[in-house]
Amino acid sequence: MSEKNVKKDVKKQTKQFKNSKNNNKAHQTKKQVNYKSKNSKPKTPKLPIKIIPLGGLLEIGKNITLYEYDGDMLLVDCGMAFPDEEMPGIDIVIPDFSYILENKDKIKGLVVTHGHEDHIGAIPYLLREFNVPIYATRLTVGLIEGKLKEHRLLDRAHLNTVKPGEIVNLGKFDVEFIHVNHSIPDAVAFAIKTGAGTVVHMGDFKIDTTPIDDFVIDFSRFAELGKKGVLAMLSDSTNAERPGYTSSEKLVGGSFSNLFKKAEGRRIVVATFSSNIHRIQQIIDEAVRCNRKVAISGRSMLNVVNVASELGYLKVPKNVLIEIEAIKNFPPEQTVIITTGSQGEPLSALHRMAFSDHRQVAIMPGDMIIISATPIPGNEKFVDKVVNELMKRGAEVVYERMYDVHVSGHACQEELKLMMSIVKPKYFIPVHGEQKHLIKHKMLAEEMGIPSDNIIIGVNGSVIEVSKKSIKCEETVTAGRVFVDGLGVGDVGSIVLRDRKHLSDNGIIVVAVSIDKVTREVVAGPDIISRGFVYVKESEDLMNEINDVVCDVLERCYIHNVRDWSTIKTKIKDGVSRFLFTKTKRSPMVLPMIMEV
Amino acid sequence: MSEKNVKKDVKKQTKQFKNSKNNNKAHQTKKQVNYKSKNSKPKTPKLPIKIIPLGGLLEIGKNITLYEYDGDMLLVDCGMAFPDEEMPGIDIVIPDFSYILENKDKIKGLVVTHGHEDHIGAIPYLLREFNVPIYATRLTVGLIEGKLKEHRLLDRAHLNTVKPGEIVNLGKFDVEFIHVNHSIPDAVAFAIKTGAGTVVHMGDFKIDTTPIDDFVIDFSRFAELGKKGVLAMLSDSTNAERPGYTSSEKLVGGSFSNLFKKAEGRRIVVATFSSNIHRIQQIIDEAVRCNRKVAISGRSMLNVVNVASELGYLKVPKNVLIEIEAIKNFPPEQTVIITTGSQGEPLSALHRMAFSDHRQVAIMPGDMIIISATPIPGNEKFVDKVVNELMKRGAEVVYERMYDVHVSGHACQEELKLMMSIVKPKYFIPVHGEQKHLIKHKMLAEEMGIPSDNIIIGVNGSVIEVSKKSIKCEETVTAGRVFVDGLGVGDVGSIVLRDRKHLSDNGIIVVAVSIDKVTREVVAGPDIISRGFVYVKESEDLMNEINDVVCDVLERCYIHNVRDWSTIKTKIKDGVSRFLFTKTKRSPMVLPMIMEV
Repeated sequence: MSEKNVKKDVKKQTKQFKNSKNNNKAHQTKKQVNYKSKNSKPKTPKLPIKIIPLGGLLEIGKNITLYEYDGDMLLVDCGMAFPDEEMPGIDIVIPDFSYILENKDKIKGLVVTHGHEDHIGAIPYLLREFNVPIYATRLTVGLIEGKLKEHRLLDRAHLNTVKPGEIVNLGKFDVEFIHVNHSIPDAVAFAIKTGAGTVVHMGDFKIDTTPIDDFVIDFSRFAELGKKGVLAMLSDSTNAERPGYTSSEKLVGGSFSNLFKKAEGRRIVVATFSSNIHRIQQIIDEAVRCNRKVAISGRSMLNVVNVASELGYLKVPKNVLIEIEAIKNFPPEQTVIITTGSQGEPLSALHRMAFSDHRQVAIMPGDMIIISATPIPGNEKFVDKVVNELMKRGAEVVYERMYDVHVSGHACQEELKLMMSIVKPKYFIPVHGEQKHLIKHKMLAEEMGIPSDNIIIGVNGSVIEVSKKSIKCEETVTAGRVFVDGLGVGDVGSIVLRDRKHLSDNGIIVVAVSIDKVTREVVAGPDIISRGFVYVKESEDLMNEINDVVCDVLERCYIHNVRDWSTIKTKIKDGVSRFLFTKTKRSPMVLPMIMEV
Repeated sequence: MSEKNVKKDVKKQTKQFKNSKNNNKAHQTKKQVNYKSKNSKPKTPKLPIKIIPLGGLLEIGKNITLYEYDGDMLLVDCGMAFPDEEMPGIDIVIPDFSYILENKDKIKGLVVTHGHEDHIGAIPYLLREFNVPIYATRLTVGLIEGKLKEHRLLDRAHLNTVKPGEIVNLGKFDVEFIHVNHSIPDAVAFAIKTGAGTVVHMGDFKIDTTPIDDFVIDFSRFAELGKKGVLAMLSDSTNAERPGYTSSEKLVGGSFSNLFKKAEGRRIVVATFSSNIHRIQQIIDEAVRCNRKVAISGRSMLNVVNVASELGYLKVPKNVLIEIEAIKNFPPEQTVIITTGSQGEPLSALHRMAFSDHRQVAIMPGDMIIISATPIPGNEKFVDKVVNELMKRGAEVVYERMYDVHVSGHACQEELKLMMSIVKPKYFIPVHGEQKHLIKHKMLAEEMGIPSDNIIIGVNGSVIEVSKKSIKCEETVTAGRVFVDGLGVGDVGSIVLRDRKHLSDNGIIVVAVSIDKVTREVVAGPDIISRGFVYVKESEDLMNEINDVVCDVLERCYIHNVRDWSTIKTKIKDGVSRFLFTKTKRSPMVLPMIMEV
């Protein structure tokens, strides 16, 4: 370990030269890689390039963009989104692939910027329908492999590893992989070259001049491209509302160092995003420094640690990692547990620890728990619940911004502007964000001197046509969202969700009655069952009154000789609904079932 | 208006002396008001005072505290809470009143700190069961009256208006009303004097040295109390996590002034909390300055503006307010609309404007919309949705912290510490907050030199016994939450909510079958209906397979002569559930109904 420290000091001294060195490294590895053997046709300079975002606009998540030039198509990223509160029971949301499947024959490949779920999460669902060849950097390929293995699709997939600096030729597209910083290693942007010009597709990025892997965003390559002329740029709008710069990942390491000192003699639990390998590296480094063993908890965290260790992205000295089952064999103050659950997710390891539902870890008074993340909008209350619960058990919980235990992976305003000033695009397309982020990003671009007419805020499905003369958006193609619920893909739609919402707000009342086919007399029932409406044992009177209402309706139908089942059902439904609304001001779903005997 | 401006300037010059002047004013009006004619018994100095928080601990909302001394009881506040995501369909949450109702005869009165829902919202539900006399300041009484009118309880309620500085004698309690600053005018803290000593019950407060009504928190009275000796203090923990000071409400006025200038020639819409009368006053003042008419939208906003204007808390020059229906008669650039919906609430006026569902207001490109609030945790996504939607319609939306369009109504760390240093309580009880807030507040108190043993973090129902010698908590009484859903109070409990959650995540499948009483043969069905599960028209095969599963179960029951309906139902339920989980990895609620013919 002392050797390691010496190494680190040497590293520090040479830091100032690193930036240019890295870029040189990137350029050295740059070479033309022809994955397709066929010769590409000579470029036709007059054609426009079409940029079609099929996801990721006016939303956070499911990033996917289709490029079209001279009859060839290229897909960039294929991500998923998490469901919001209007999609109860939905597991994940994926893009609508119809337009892609219609154009299967034209699509030459899928290039992927990085290994986050919102960029790779929908790949298995696409591959089921269309076995497109995939090109990505090494770690990204590793993470996609894991995903495909789970879906039993790995055997037939065509995965190709590309190094930053390399160019992949896909039909009429030359795609250059350019290193960027982000909250996952091996993230890249693309320079997509066609006869119409070069489009820089940024993917997610930040500028980190002191990244954990010493591999700074490839400024000089972006500058070269900018100098040669960039037709259009698509850029990450996530943090377009935030002024200033995003802090370096190194900042978090300093906080860990202080907090680990503070926690001397006590157990430490750190929750973070499983994909943030540099964060995990910093936790492990600090644990090694403090002579603590490290245990990993949470399925996705274990997966990523395994993949990243195997591929060399995570460097763990021998005898540091222990199985979570083995922590009981070590004094608590000599352990660190790295866990999932930094967003308060109800099934995550940290949540289970907080609610005493974790098989190996019981929170003890004095435990230091660091939540190394900020809640994604919508998750605040989930995180609060976990924090409160951990505190009730006597743990010290570090979770606020003021402790610098998290930095964003996305560029803030000054970084966004810096990138624009280097890349100097003629046209600008803000992507990856809600309306408010895109508009703010557009305003930043205007500040940088890009004319308003040269900026387009599209929607999912917009066909943005860019040529040297103009940028325009005159048509749209099918784009939307498909819900995944259990094994079902697309079998839950808006009607089912509307019903779920109705059921969840008001519950259901089922009214069953058997009627004689011939005499039209009631031979059994009405039976009334409710779920999610009132606690029946305490509301017997109300249930009896509902019964009376149904009997009244049936009697009137009998007297007036109403013979149509669906009319009778409607009358039961209306009668019960009206009665209940007057009586309780509630509107449970009323489901009449008539059985013909 | 020019006269008004002159007035304002004079005011500014005398500002520095105001603080002490106000306090003098408060003291001048101080007098002993005996609402009860009976003479109180001589105080017994040896008895402890019991402080029983029945709500507001480990939660945000439904603040209610019961005090007991020598056989007499006093209630402080009676608030409601908003439901969280685990309470679908619930309208509001109120405290469990059982312990109060058990002790009706001892309770001498309800004193109320201020007119926010989390302090007055449950009063109508309490008054239905127990017509306790109520004591509050003028605006608070006004707001309670409005509430009771809606619930048709006003006629029989006993409402008493008390001025800040006055003392109300309620049995063995002398309750002094002390002016504090907050995000609603006329907020008070209480000094509750008993034979056991004085307890300072802070309620919600902040320190605003430049409040809109020039009525600064009554520092000198708190200082006097501190000098004489305060036994215990209960204080607002809402912002205990935030360092520094909460800004003055005046800050927002400055931002409005800049934004109104920026919006020249365009319509302005401002959304804020309806109860923030000083905020509304500042908007109106700025509108007057800019020669704009003001229209109010949203039921609660209209209510509060009416009450506050009538009582003189809101000063609106003549011919400024117009009906919302009349805005079409004025050029948009000469109007300001003040509206509800600053939390993105789906039925609020701003939400309706954003989604083109507002009868009088259609958002136009160029409209300047100011959301003068920060989202309460859990509401972030609702607010984002509204912001995005407004922007899609071309409006400029101001909603970020950086614009200073909102300040909190609660004291931050430095203010909390300042109050402790003035009041100098022997014992400290942090209230009004989740576990994390209470713990932080306790840490602040320790920093201020209050020994850890003199601080108690209770839970709802804790009986905190305080005497000159000790503070302890050895017993608890019934305290909890009661759900209000439509007209039902308490008829929805945890089982109903669990069912609602299940229904909302997975939907329901109802299986109905008619069986002959004698032969045990199936005479009709099985009929299968699903709601919230899959879109049936596209899943006919699946529904047929479910039918087969049910028929199998019924056949086996018939063959094995199973005659017990509930056993058959269980077998149907298990069979269908198992089949569906294997087939779809989903678990809809399965509801079998057997009709005996």
